[in-house]
Amino acid sequence: MAQAAGKRPHVVILGGGFGGLAAAQTLKNADVDVTVVDKTNYHLFQPLLYQVAMAGLSAGDIAHPIRSILRQQKNTEVILAEVTKVDLKANLIHTSVGEINYDYLILAAGAQTNYFGHNDWPDFAVGLKDIDDALEIRRRVLVAFEDAESEKDTVKQKQMLTFVVIGGGPTGVELAGSLAELARHSLVRDFRHINPSSAQIILLEGLPRVLPPFVEELSAKAAEQLKRIGVEVRTGVKVTNINECGVHVEGGEIIPSSTVMWCAGVAAVPLTKTMDVNLDRGGRVIVEPDLSIPNFKNAFAIGDVSNFAHQGEKPLPGLAPVAMQQGEAAARSILDDLSGRTRRKFHYTDKGTMATIGRSAAVADLGKLKLSGLPAWLAWLLIHILMLIGFRNRAVVFLNWLWSFFTYDRGSRLITGHRMEAGCPIDLRQKVKTETK
Amino acid sequence: MAQAAGKRPHVVILGGGFGGLAAAQTLKNADVDVTVVDKTNYHLFQPLLYQVAMAGLSAGDIAHPIRSILRQQKNTEVILAEVTKVDLKANLIHTSVGEINYDYLILAAGAQTNYFGHNDWPDFAVGLKDIDDALEIRRRVLVAFEDAESEKDTVKQKQMLTFVVIGGGPTGVELAGSLAELARHSLVRDFRHINPSSAQIILLEGLPRVLPPFVEELSAKAAEQLKRIGVEVRTGVKVTNINECGVHVEGGEIIPSSTVMWCAGVAAVPLTKTMDVNLDRGGRVIVEPDLSIPNFKNAFAIGDVSNFAHQGEKPLPGLAPVAMQQGEAAARSILDDLSGRTRRKFHYTDKGTMATIGRSAAVADLGKLKLSGLPAWLAWLLIHILMLIGFRNRAVVFLNWLWSFFTYDRGSRLITGHRMEAGCPIDLRQKVKTETK
Repeated sequence: MAQAAGKRPHVVILGGGFGGLAAAQTLKNADVDVTVVDKTNYHLFQPLLYQVAMAGLSAGDIAHPIRSILRQQKNTEVILAEVTKVDLKANLIHTSVGEINYDYLILAAGAQTNYFGHNDWPDFAVGLKDIDDALEIRRRVLVAFEDAESEKDTVKQKQMLTFVVIGGGPTGVELAGSLAELARHSLVRDFRHINPSSAQIILLEGLPRVLPPFVEELSAKAAEQLKRIGVEVRTGVKVTNINECGVHVEGGEIIPSSTVMWCAGVAAVPLTKTMDVNLDRGGRVIVEPDLSIPNFKNAFAIGDVSNFAHQGEKPLPGLAPVAMQQGEAAARSILDDLSGRTRRKFHYTDKGTMATIGRSAAVADLGKLKLSGLPAWLAWLLIHILMLIGFRNRAVVFLNWLWSFFTYDRGSRLITGHRMEAGCPIDLRQKVKTETK
Repeated sequence: MAQAAGKRPHVVILGGGFGGLAAAQTLKNADVDVTVVDKTNYHLFQPLLYQVAMAGLSAGDIAHPIRSILRQQKNTEVILAEVTKVDLKANLIHTSVGEINYDYLILAAGAQTNYFGHNDWPDFAVGLKDIDDALEIRRRVLVAFEDAESEKDTVKQKQMLTFVVIGGGPTGVELAGSLAELARHSLVRDFRHINPSSAQIILLEGLPRVLPPFVEELSAKAAEQLKRIGVEVRTGVKVTNINECGVHVEGGEIIPSSTVMWCAGVAAVPLTKTMDVNLDRGGRVIVEPDLSIPNFKNAFAIGDVSNFAHQGEKPLPGLAPVAMQQGEAAARSILDDLSGRTRRKFHYTDKGTMATIGRSAAVADLGKLKLSGLPAWLAWLLIHILMLIGFRNRAVVFLNWLWSFFTYDRGSRLITGHRMEAGCPIDLRQKVKTETK
């Protein structure tokens, strides 16, 4: 795949998430060859991943093949491969299907769950970063209710019906809220021996309030709405251990729980460590004002893999709009180079942030306008449906939502297993979870 | 869970498929306690499983929680458990969550893929009996196209683009036809280096014609329609081996293929072997005219687990309508017993059989009326949509189909992996494929 001299510039984009896709689409009509490399064949609408985990949506509703999205873009090809190393000096990518040369690189490989070095925690506390995570959480939650239904020992049964979500950021809040609705509404009529609505759902946050990135007023509103739908919110709580008994917190208390979910940390993918550049504590590449990697004007880092600290007090947060605006900006800088213009500095336009808590409950910070409750939820619903890529998905998701809203039924309540196989050559592609190390 | 004397009769139904559900629903208003035991938490609409395998539908579209289906039925409870042994003499079931006594038993545990003792074939040729099978086939098929896209060696590339379906019964025909459409229509615009429509799809059948249970005229029509959409149909071919090179057939020929699907045999679940009763070669229980198990008037075997040879020349086939009618009949016999009536003999009413081949292509044998092509396909579509359980599924499936029909787009084209984990207590529930042994 080495590039011959004289050809038009080759732009390689690592990652088909929000940032990578925005970059590719910005280069649609450019006189370049674009290659998008991703380890999955789909673009994932990550803001709705918790809905898959809580059986409200099917995996197919929030994921769309990258090939289909970029089908019409003639200057672009898509490669399904795992990237193992980026050699910035040699302008070379090492992947599971061979080496790829580039003239420009846009690193948009995203983040993964960070357990901060606790290598045994992932077994007991599933993260929520990809489809496999979401299906695993779904399986564990549904199996916990099933196990409790046939359990005679009341202590064990209580443990099975206690669910702990660690991390009170938007993902944790959405997961806990959605789990409360699953238990109190969707499952409540299905069992004979247990009462699913008696399930205890505990949200733990280390800082003094949930939704720390939001203003205090909205944090308080979110906590209030969570309590109203039956989530026990505990802030200022430090987790010291997680094992088969449950969650151990500072002070010695153990919360007995069979199902623990981890939404307390993300870090950039470990790929950044192969690049020999300055990283922050979360493994993110510290970038220049034009998003380029220091000393490598032809390489950019965007989205969750990037630390952009040139605007405001803190680096920009890991949100889809940040990634999308950065993807567009990095691609524009390439276009500027090619036509001899000066690159512009990146500037993020914050259109607001929101988090949903449950049916008709959400908070939204739209600059001067702070919404909560039903208005915030309607705003959230509208924006998320509009943002979903692909008409089909939009229609199906909307139909599913309407159905769930009026009936509290969740159509995707399937417990699917994972088969273990040996000796099949295609198993190479199977994802074995590699934690940050 | 032992039953106390004096209580009303306890009917245990093993399996929540078409037969088991029909039996449970027939007992809806009866003065009995019903327990449905299944190893999955969902009822599966198996006739559409090939659509999940070929990315046309999501798993959630064709599966519905058994608990939800039976939610309103107050005399019925559902247990998620693996049944390990049936003790007919003691009226006792051994399960992964304990023992269950019964007064009446309806064995409706279904069938699984049968490799006829070739224990190494399942690694190379996936069957199609459950959701996990379907997702595994989907993954292998989509990965084969991805691998071919980045493969430089043309011999290997050809092997990756050769798909072999073994078994020309309805499942094999549906799978091969649907795969041809996936390759020739849905994927054709997505790749840059390969032409998916050049993929070779080979359907192998040991007997002299495809769809052996159908009349010859319809077998010929089906073969013709398959050829028209690009499936190479080879009949009278015996498979001697399957390995990483491909499929070895009698006479020494090897068909190089990376993706082989096995639709050539099913057998009753191995549970029947724990019962110490007469079984046929496929492990099915040979039943009395009233569907009871010989010498055990209070135990019935229905559906794919049953060999009913009292009507026609051959035992009844393993079809959903057979299972449903038998489930109803077994439940009626229990009601007859309880009200002192004489049991009736079971009689199957054949309303016809159909198989779909692809977009607008199918065959249908409705007694005197033999249909093929578009009329057969429309009849098939209508009947299958009407049969789908649950409104939500029906609407979503219909919408998905309409969308696919007009656009050739397949929304569920996700390659999802299977994570391997160790040490998690809930892994007990994970399905490890046990072949007939």
